Amino acid sequence: MFFFIIMMAAFGLTYARLCAGLNPARVCDGLIGRRTGLLMHLTRSLSGMTISQIDEEVAKLLQLKAQIGGDEGKHVFVLKTPKGTRDYNPKQMAIREKVFNTIISCFKRHGAETIDTPVFELKETLTGKYGEDSKLIYDLKDQGGELLSLRYDLTVPFARYLAMNKITNIKRYHIAKVYRRDNPAMTRGRYREFYQCDFDIAGQYDAMIPDAECLRIVHEIMSELELGDFRIKVNDRRILDGMFAACGVPDDKFRTICSSVDKLDKMPWEEVKNEIVKEKGLPEEVADQIGEYVRMQAGGMELAEQLLQDPKLSKSKAAVAGLTDIKLLFSYLQLFKVTDKVVFDLSLARGLDYYTGVIYEAILTQAGVAPPPTPQDANGSAGDDGPVSVGSVAGGGRYDGLVGMFDPKGRKVPCVGVSIGIERIFSIMEQKAEVSAEKVRTTETQVLVASAQKNLLEERLKLTSELWDAGIKAEVLYKKNPKLLSQLQHCEESGIPLVAILGEQELRDGVVKLRNVASREEMDVSRAELVEEIRKRTSQS
Amino acid sequence: MFFFIIMMAAFGLTYARLCAGLNPARVCDGLIGRRTGLLMHLTRSLSGMTISQIDEEVAKLLQLKAQIGGDEGKHVFVLKTPKGTRDYNPKQMAIREKVFNTIISCFKRHGAETIDTPVFELKETLTGKYGEDSKLIYDLKDQGGELLSLRYDLTVPFARYLAMNKITNIKRYHIAKVYRRDNPAMTRGRYREFYQCDFDIAGQYDAMIPDAECLRIVHEIMSELELGDFRIKVNDRRILDGMFAACGVPDDKFRTICSSVDKLDKMPWEEVKNEIVKEKGLPEEVADQIGEYVRMQAGGMELAEQLLQDPKLSKSKAAVAGLTDIKLLFSYLQLFKVTDKVVFDLSLARGLDYYTGVIYEAILTQAGVAPPPTPQDANGSAGDDGPVSVGSVAGGGRYDGLVGMFDPKGRKVPCVGVSIGIERIFSIMEQKAEVSAEKVRTTETQVLVASAQKNLLEERLKLTSELWDAGIKAEVLYKKNPKLLSQLQHCEESGIPLVAILGEQELRDGVVKLRNVASREEMDVSRAELVEEIRKRTSQS
Repeated sequence: MFFFIIMMAAFGLTYARLCAGLNPARVCDGLIGRRTGLLMHLTRSLSGMTISQIDEEVAKLLQLKAQIGGDEGKHVFVLKTPKGTRDYNPKQMAIREKVFNTIISCFKRHGAETIDTPVFELKETLTGKYGEDSKLIYDLKDQGGELLSLRYDLTVPFARYLAMNKITNIKRYHIAKVYRRDNPAMTRGRYREFYQCDFDIAGQYDAMIPDAECLRIVHEIMSELELGDFRIKVNDRRILDGMFAACGVPDDKFRTICSSVDKLDKMPWEEVKNEIVKEKGLPEEVADQIGEYVRMQAGGMELAEQLLQDPKLSKSKAAVAGLTDIKLLFSYLQLFKVTDKVVFDLSLARGLDYYTGVIYEAILTQAGVAPPPTPQDANGSAGDDGPVSVGSVAGGGRYDGLVGMFDPKGRKVPCVGVSIGIERIFSIMEQKAEVSAEKVRTTETQVLVASAQKNLLEERLKLTSELWDAGIKAEVLYKKNPKLLSQLQHCEESGIPLVAILGEQELRDGVVKLRNVASREEMDVSRAELVEEIRKRTSQS
Repeated sequence: MFFFIIMMAAFGLTYARLCAGLNPARVCDGLIGRRTGLLMHLTRSLSGMTISQIDEEVAKLLQLKAQIGGDEGKHVFVLKTPKGTRDYNPKQMAIREKVFNTIISCFKRHGAETIDTPVFELKETLTGKYGEDSKLIYDLKDQGGELLSLRYDLTVPFARYLAMNKITNIKRYHIAKVYRRDNPAMTRGRYREFYQCDFDIAGQYDAMIPDAECLRIVHEIMSELELGDFRIKVNDRRILDGMFAACGVPDDKFRTICSSVDKLDKMPWEEVKNEIVKEKGLPEEVADQIGEYVRMQAGGMELAEQLLQDPKLSKSKAAVAGLTDIKLLFSYLQLFKVTDKVVFDLSLARGLDYYTGVIYEAILTQAGVAPPPTPQDANGSAGDDGPVSVGSVAGGGRYDGLVGMFDPKGRKVPCVGVSIGIERIFSIMEQKAEVSAEKVRTTETQVLVASAQKNLLEERLKLTSELWDAGIKAEVLYKKNPKLLSQLQHCEESGIPLVAILGEQELRDGVVKLRNVASREEMDVSRAELVEEIRKRTSQS
């Protein structure tokens, strides 16, 4: 409480300074309106704020201060990307491309097509799909016209796409950014803007065959990315529902209890139980019964077999259907040779509302993959993740009802899919790249057109143009008379393997001096043979 | 006016029905608040609405109606993408990939790296960069935290990136979606969410060399995409400014007069003049003087030479600097062999505030490239484009002051760049693909694992898994006992060239019957040699 009083005083001070330094002529109505609203908002709700919310208010005030000119009336920008987002520099892009290529190759190996959808949807399209997570959706401002929200995942837009185009069969992947107003923990790869790589199979098929392929895909991608050991947890919404019913949870609380159980990978059972009893209002003995199930040792087909004999669960039709399918799923997974990494785990819940059957999640199990919080994380300015969790890097499941929610006649299209959470993977790869200190090239330039003498700009441009015409990746420095040394340095820095050097003598002889940057060897090559020679030398490397 | 009264009555009716059919128990406070706000908004501002705004209000009302349940209390979705946006289906994605590959190859040939930035920026970052177009920026709702806007182009985020990371030299490309609340005309490739493909060169270099490379890049891309004949118009902000000054335009009106002149490709001079005199308040004789310049026949180096002799322009330092650079630019363009398509055109203005030097724009000149408006366009429901214009497909210029606007110490980083407006190009390519009726494959699957007999699902899955292990792109139907015919049909439809057929006999013999879908030839291949055989056959095609 003491802390809040301090914060309040600090805000008051900032605000008073802000007002004192104000040049009324420069402040438009809109700004005054905003500022007053902000102050009211602050005084009204300060006592209930979290550290992260306070950070956001501070950021907003600073931004406002910059807008109205600050103390000296100087226009100062807040030079940053929005909270929870980042730029990708050329090196990070090179890593990103590599990861995407691995994932896309896998999706294509499984015969998937690809689609794309807009970054925002009608707000209504997202309503009622995400349960308690809906509060994390970014809305657009009402500027006249439709009410819009940024997509929260790629699954709901996919379902909307299927219903809108009356598609009943498709196997597609979609790689795009999604948006969640969550607490970011960026060093651990948790962002507010992040990529998802989704693979989904829509259509009425025989049980568990497409589901098994999704798990096989997770297994392939996780193996190929070489991120260390991993495990894929599997469960089924029907088993969870049957279990909740058997334990005495009322029907209308299944989803919210699911959300609580979903937190078991981040907090101990005692805290989850506390939430179930105190926040969600279930009797303690109900919570205890749930606890007995969700704390069972994860297993395989034999655990499903054992639970089918469970006196309470065997009375639930939903649970029996789910357990029977889990058995069938494991039989296919054996054929796909991926059972080494897959476990049936009753504690896996996944919070999203739309799942109806099998659900799964891949986690990295190797110690040390989650980087320790940096000072930035720790003081909360970039958010806080709570206890360090071994990160989930992929997840998905079956959602047979979602497309029907969009179809005017409620026609169902059964779907199952998986989403690869790529940002955590990027973080790990970037750290690996930093440690290895291997030089990553960020361009593909084959040759720099250079000269050692003055007044040869025109000749350099002409030769460069000829090389471009021939499809050679060529650069030329944008200086009239660059020094040879700075031309060679540019090659060293960006890894360009060859330099084509022009001089008066070479021009008279109709040749170019072709220099290998690494070995420093030079050789005269006739203009007519230059393209072929460059191709030959750079195809070897 | 009559039309507005009708619309008002229609709104009233819809609204009354909405209220009558209302089930109060199902309506939360938020909805009631929104509805009242909407009604007030409607009654307040109806008389000033355009057709497009009315469409948007109707859409909003329908969306609201769906949200609160409509007449029958049924939950009906508005099944559409937001106004001015679209999905890409797999065929469109295939075309998109092809266009991107052409463009990216060109950027890489010129030695560019790539970066990425978030889809939204701090609102403040975009403020004051787009002149009169700022009203088209999408803002995000204030949900607590920073005030954000969707990026309007890739240039301002690039400048922010350079300043934030203190980068003074880079040649980079960036391909990503940008957002403008403009009037869409989707059949002509004008969207509210659209891709830009940007190439920019930042750094202090000798005059006009990077500028010439940007124009060469436009020339290469336009030629390689084979969209028909094109022209690249070039002008310079300093020439425009010098011309405005010479004609007696006050300094503080340069930018707004630029915006007016920029409309010359869409409307006749008389209308532009009207805007300059009536809306922007300049004397008629000033407008007439501007008119004399901007209606001059476009030319090349000789036009620059001629204007350097112009008694009024030659007195303006800015105009002389601009004209001298245009001459130098054309000399480099000659070396780059692109002067066949480039013209110096005094009527080219480009509306954006941040340009400081050379500006350019590429247009398609071939008749018939702009498809006629569809009924959807014509009735305004998808917006209206005004008179059909031969579309601009690329544009750019020099912006030496933009990075300095972000740098705390105002340090300048001179920049020049070009942006390819890819959506119009997609539209044209899609129409071409439809006309040619050539079948576009949307997957890369090499082989379908099939069987003609029952009860072989497990064997099919096992073989498919083996093929995936070997990196073969393989599919299997998700049915226990699919008919051979439907398996073959799937191959025909999606262009899969080979079928690997399993039967009891084949299993006993340790072979697979490999069938060529096109020729219907079948051949037994041993399991050990299957992978090699599939590779051999599909590498040929």
